[in-house]
Amino acid sequence: MTAYTATVTVRLKRGVLDPEAETTQRQLERLGFDLADLRSADQFEIDVDATDADAAAERADEMAERLLANPTIHDYTVEVAERDA
Amino acid sequence: MTAYTATVTVRLKRGVLDPEAETTQRQLERLGFDLADLRSADQFEIDVDATDADAAAERADEMAERLLANPTIHDYTVEVAERDA
Repeated sequence: MTAYTATVTVRLKRGVLDPEAETTQRQLERLGFDLADLRSADQFEIDVDATDADAAAERADEMAERLLANPTIHDYTVEVAERDA
Repeated sequence: MTAYTATVTVRLKRGVLDPEAETTQRQLERLGFDLADLRSADQFEIDVDATDADAAAERADEMAERLLANPTIHDYTVEVAERDA
């Protein structure tokens, strides 16, 4: 078994309103920053032990499907890297 | 000016309690997943136009300092990539 960290990033699908991100963008603009757009995402860094990177990614993918992301409104990506156990 | 996306990832400092992440971890374990640890982070993808990548990173860094991160409890990282305008 090897120690991996799987990073699951959960984003709202294009077209889904994100009032919190809009508020953050307005607030930055009020502070004088110039930005074209701002999107927010939730990131989960999950430490798992698995036989290989593919197995770790598959498990993280299943976690996203079952709990971390809502398929109606979210897209998600999974990245896997070895970690120092 | 070039179009960039700056990704600011805001994490809780080591030692700061994260009850939401703990709840998520428990819930995954209750679903039968085996994981060593789970940390959550907030990610902001910010579209900015800047003269070069360094200028874009500097501006995102300032946004994190001024609004996106709370230095008492948060660490943050900034990554910059060109985007299709």
